[in-house]
Amino acid sequence: MPFEITNEYIQQIQQLIAEDNEDALLTLLEEVHYADIAEIIEEIEYSEAIYIIKLLESDVTSEIIAELDEDTRENILKGLSSKEIAEELSELDTDDAADIISELSDKQIKEVISHIEDEEHAKDIIELLRYDEDTAGGLMAKELVKVNENWNVLTCVKEMRAQAEEVSRVHSIYVVDDNNILKGRLSLKDLLTTSTKTAIKDVFIKKVDSVTVNDDAEDVAKIMQKYDLEAIPVVDELGRLVGRITIDDIVDVIKEEAEKDYQMAAGISQDVEADDTIWELTKARLPWLILALFGGFVSVSILGGFATAMIKYKELFFFTPLIAAMAGNVGVQSSAIILQGLANDSLKGSWWKRLIKEVSLSLLNGFVLAALLMSAGMFFLGFDIKVGLTVAISLVSVIIIASIIGTFVPIILDKRGIDPALATGPFITTSNDICGILIYFWIAKLILGF
Amino acid sequence: MPFEITNEYIQQIQQLIAEDNEDALLTLLEEVHYADIAEIIEEIEYSEAIYIIKLLESDVTSEIIAELDEDTRENILKGLSSKEIAEELSELDTDDAADIISELSDKQIKEVISHIEDEEHAKDIIELLRYDEDTAGGLMAKELVKVNENWNVLTCVKEMRAQAEEVSRVHSIYVVDDNNILKGRLSLKDLLTTSTKTAIKDVFIKKVDSVTVNDDAEDVAKIMQKYDLEAIPVVDELGRLVGRITIDDIVDVIKEEAEKDYQMAAGISQDVEADDTIWELTKARLPWLILALFGGFVSVSILGGFATAMIKYKELFFFTPLIAAMAGNVGVQSSAIILQGLANDSLKGSWWKRLIKEVSLSLLNGFVLAALLMSAGMFFLGFDIKVGLTVAISLVSVIIIASIIGTFVPIILDKRGIDPALATGPFITTSNDICGILIYFWIAKLILGF
Repeated sequence: MPFEITNEYIQQIQQLIAEDNEDALLTLLEEVHYADIAEIIEEIEYSEAIYIIKLLESDVTSEIIAELDEDTRENILKGLSSKEIAEELSELDTDDAADIISELSDKQIKEVISHIEDEEHAKDIIELLRYDEDTAGGLMAKELVKVNENWNVLTCVKEMRAQAEEVSRVHSIYVVDDNNILKGRLSLKDLLTTSTKTAIKDVFIKKVDSVTVNDDAEDVAKIMQKYDLEAIPVVDELGRLVGRITIDDIVDVIKEEAEKDYQMAAGISQDVEADDTIWELTKARLPWLILALFGGFVSVSILGGFATAMIKYKELFFFTPLIAAMAGNVGVQSSAIILQGLANDSLKGSWWKRLIKEVSLSLLNGFVLAALLMSAGMFFLGFDIKVGLTVAISLVSVIIIASIIGTFVPIILDKRGIDPALATGPFITTSNDICGILIYFWIAKLILGF
Repeated sequence: MPFEITNEYIQQIQQLIAEDNEDALLTLLEEVHYADIAEIIEEIEYSEAIYIIKLLESDVTSEIIAELDEDTRENILKGLSSKEIAEELSELDTDDAADIISELSDKQIKEVISHIEDEEHAKDIIELLRYDEDTAGGLMAKELVKVNENWNVLTCVKEMRAQAEEVSRVHSIYVVDDNNILKGRLSLKDLLTTSTKTAIKDVFIKKVDSVTVNDDAEDVAKIMQKYDLEAIPVVDELGRLVGRITIDDIVDVIKEEAEKDYQMAAGISQDVEADDTIWELTKARLPWLILALFGGFVSVSILGGFATAMIKYKELFFFTPLIAAMAGNVGVQSSAIILQGLANDSLKGSWWKRLIKEVSLSLLNGFVLAALLMSAGMFFLGFDIKVGLTVAISLVSVIIIASIIGTFVPIILDKRGIDPALATGPFITTSNDICGILIYFWIAKLILGF
């Protein structure tokens, strides 16, 4: 069922553009969804993209522009006049229009706004520009269907028909009082099944979940997921209904959040994609690599401090990468599990219980790994029992310490209001590398006595 | 606005249960959302949970049970008879009911089904049990509003009112022909704004996206996101309308997918949570640690093979953890970026271009890091220029190779139909550790000639 964009299809479009065959292009693209045309735009040349945008009607091109990657959109908008941009924005819901216009310069924003013919629409967009993009205000749209509690169902249906023309998707009908204070909601289902003569006051549902304009976008996502909401009304500090957020915007929030956490864990500090420039990729990657390099210096110094042991026990040095790798892996596992628990608010029980659990888990894993190490080491690598025992004991200790660090560093960061995702990836790996090597050589010194 | 579950609140509930004060409990819980009661159930004792489930009406408890963690639900269901479970399932939409019943034993499934009074509902649940949970069929519900293209709007509205009673959320009205073949849809908005005398044939939208029962759940999620759909109809192989999937189920698919990728990257092979048993956590974590251990053995052997170099160049061995760590970090960064590109279908351009880009990026990052290493090494650690140069050249080479491995292993796995997420985390770190150490000593041997 989904439309497949083939190379032949794109070549056909490019051919038609080259021939300036407007009719054939319009016929070809007529049946294509705007999301697919947006994908085509990403694939073709800039001049071809502008040709298509100028060719199609603004009710389609506005959706295409909203769908594009930020970089591509920036380019396309440069090819349009302020008046043309205003026409596109007039077709869009206020939330999408505000998102796009916020990418322009202050000067151009003013120009574009002045060209939007519907004053109400322009006013709504300006209002939305006030809010931080990571808040409920930044996510909401002004388009909604609301009725006054003092109306009867008949007036209500009439008013709603007019409002529904403006709203692409009707989720709920919100009920307000004369001061625009949110009082409750009417469901569409009720509307289908209630007699038209009833008074709104008598039928509306008085309980309605809502969020406030300054609420955090992530919290809004959690509430909508928990209560399985497809739309939620947004009120200002005084309880007045100012907008509504729909689930499709929340899907984007959830995806972005997941991608951010994933990138953090992989040591990428900014939202980058494989097709970004080398410079953008370097900015996102290099800081973490420098951190790892300095961590590496610390391990060099530690090893240097134990240089005298090299004469008698050179095998010890062969095992440092193994010990460091195990410490890193265990730490990343522990921190990942805790981070997901923190994200889902599902961590229960006291610190003590968690500590005992982590230590038991590490002992179990540690003994299995140490036993494997000892047997493989003795049979295949043939090192002496004292060194083998040293490495095995160190391995168990390192695993315990690494899992404690991996578990509690995110918890402590979270308690202090710092994003615990910072503690994953390179940060945990590097600090556990260092701790692991230090513990290893301490234990070796104790047992072997160099 | 969201309800906060405090310890005092839970104690109050436990107190009322101990006093067997049903009326006070009912009053207390009356205003509480089922999702919140589900959270309370997770916090209290088993006997208390059963008390609450048996106390409340089944229209609430069914939603509570659907909301619970799988482990908690399993326990609660053990405390209920087959007849009681059937009552709960009768209240739920077919998709939720099928998900819950599929967790029971085959024998109990039969018993529970035989107690469901609404035969149609029971038949629908049995039908849904046929589908794999990771397919469109596994996600869909049977509840939907459909009308025949041969009706007029009047019949349609009448029929819809009856159907809407059964459907908790009306997203779209699907239009079918006499053979139940999906022909198109009617939007609710159209319903609000169209005269009731029109014939359905003349007003319905002939274009409707749909998926087939065996389509992959992830693909359904991608389609619904791309086309901004809140619900999508599901058809069988013959094009007959058999169900519909709503966006809230897709939100769960997206979240689970993101969590799975995150856990893979952290070296956790099963869906586990911080509060799972030590045994479950070990099963998820130990396999990756064993992989890392065997990788460690390989690096031990490599270092052992260069043991003779230790006499003259012991500093070389101090740098092995640093080189291994850098290789691991670079590999994880590269693979994470590629994996996200693969997941979003946003990778463009040829392999050649990508290779050139990765090498340029690595050269840039590598030179910065090598310069830092050289200056820090010479000024603070005071090692000789020949060793410093060896380490620096190795570092740049290792970064190049690690980023190439990190980039192309996921791409190759993906081409071969293997989940590329396998290639992140411990797998990439371990193989890059080994490659890194090998390259490092080869280059050292070339330059220093031991």
